[in-house]
Amino acid sequence: MKLYIGNKNYSSWSMRAGVLLAAFGIPFDEVKLRLDYGNPASDWHRVIAAITPTKQVPVLVEDDGFAVWDTLAITEFVADRHPELPIWPRDAKARARARSLCAEMHAGFTRLRTVCPMNIEAFFPEVGAKLWAEDEVLRANVARLEAAWADALQASGGPFLFGAFSAADAFFAPVAIRLSRYGLPVSDTAAAYRDALLAHPAVEDWIADALREQDFLAHTEPYRQSR
Amino acid sequence: MKLYIGNKNYSSWSMRAGVLLAAFGIPFDEVKLRLDYGNPASDWHRVIAAITPTKQVPVLVEDDGFAVWDTLAITEFVADRHPELPIWPRDAKARARARSLCAEMHAGFTRLRTVCPMNIEAFFPEVGAKLWAEDEVLRANVARLEAAWADALQASGGPFLFGAFSAADAFFAPVAIRLSRYGLPVSDTAAAYRDALLAHPAVEDWIADALREQDFLAHTEPYRQSR
Ligand SMILES: N[C@@H](CCC(=O)N[C@@H](CS)C(=O)NCC(=O)O)C(=O)O
Ligand SMILES: N[C@@H](CCC(=O)N[C@@H](CS)C(=O)NCC(=O)O)C(=O)O
Repeated sequence: MKLYIGNKNYSSWSMRAGVLLAAFGIPFDEVKLRLDYGNPASDWHRVIAAITPTKQVPVLVEDDGFAVWDTLAITEFVADRHPELPIWPRDAKARARARSLCAEMHAGFTRLRTVCPMNIEAFFPEVGAKLWAEDEVLRANVARLEAAWADALQASGGPFLFGAFSAADAFFAPVAIRLSRYGLPVSDTAAAYRDALLAHPAVEDWIADALREQDFLAHTEPYRQSR
Repeated sequence: MKLYIGNKNYSSWSMRAGVLLAAFGIPFDEVKLRLDYGNPASDWHRVIAAITPTKQVPVLVEDDGFAVWDTLAITEFVADRHPELPIWPRDAKARARARSLCAEMHAGFTRLRTVCPMNIEAFFPEVGAKLWAEDEVLRANVARLEAAWADALQASGGPFLFGAFSAADAFFAPVAIRLSRYGLPVSDTAAAYRDALLAHPAVEDWIADALREQDFLAHTEPYRQSR
């Protein structure tokens, strides 16, 4: 099967799916599409329209062309297909909690996602400090993350949210990048978890690939004029 | 177990979870919280803070207090617990497609959700006509719905998206209300599916309860001054 993704440097939803598959050793061919959807003549438009009606990445495409779109649906699809892998925690309550957290991430944390777009290669500590001082909703988003992480880590004992790495951790990997790149202040517990995420081999590989891209897409760069 | 919901007239996410449980005959106690989160002294704040960290409904609470929040996580939780019920389609591809559609609904269709808030007891054909004429993004949201529904209905033969009623239909029940209350024009195929949703017993019961509420919450009433 193929996983279509966007720029590794920028595409946070792609990262969730890509890290998940890599972390569990599920074989797939990666197809990268440059996220230049502002340009109607781009490869993006030609390729994406042929594979998914939502015109978004990530998309998982089977050999017969069958497409599974949306990170959450991709996660459930691979969990269904690989019951031997602990993609979700084995304990029913931990599993329910992991799904609550992923669904909350999927539809929530809008302010953090909007004002701190993922940009793996860039460090914006001044932007982060300014946002932190001025943006109450951003601070509330981060406070909610800290509380959610602390609850799960306390129940499991860590190092990942439900002990071993699970889908929930893949969903928060781009958040770890944001906290680190924008230098947002967090509790010791959250910082340790952020660092555990950043040090996971599947996350490290994704970051290394992102750093090799050296691309610049102005539409998702509110804080730089160029590289 | 208890399902905490908001006003049936207004709370579209509550409706998804409530209709799903009712449609599959899963027993639960319903606890209704008036959605007056603008008022810090309201019952809403007192009750919601004690049961869920996200302070949103729906929330499923087990007898021991364990909470599952977010519609998608609640759906997966009951599907996990009731493998005997076809909450998701039995066929692996249909199941993946149903989950793609639910996840797409969960994070998408923002314009439709914003400019046409659910209000079961009210009919706004003039508002709908004006929005339809002026709002290109709304029209694109509806076009995407029509395409997604047509694809699924053609593959399954209907009357519901995957043949028999499934979680995907519960996720679109509030959309059927919106299309009907705002009088948004849709294809014959979409209209037939909208009407099949509105005529499902679990949806009919929800609507009947909503009509009995006769409440008015100004913060979610952009188009009325009073009842
Ligand atoms: N809910 C979707 C969100 C996917 C998404 O927003 N992807 C972005 C890239 S990170 C995209 O494809 N944007 C292109 C567009 O919206 O036109 C998911 O979880 O997969
Ligand atoms: N993603 C959540 C959304 C839930 C949601 O937005 N619920 C609304 C009522 S329909 C709510 O509780 N709003 C209160 C608030 O946001 O303060 C889900 O699927 O359950």
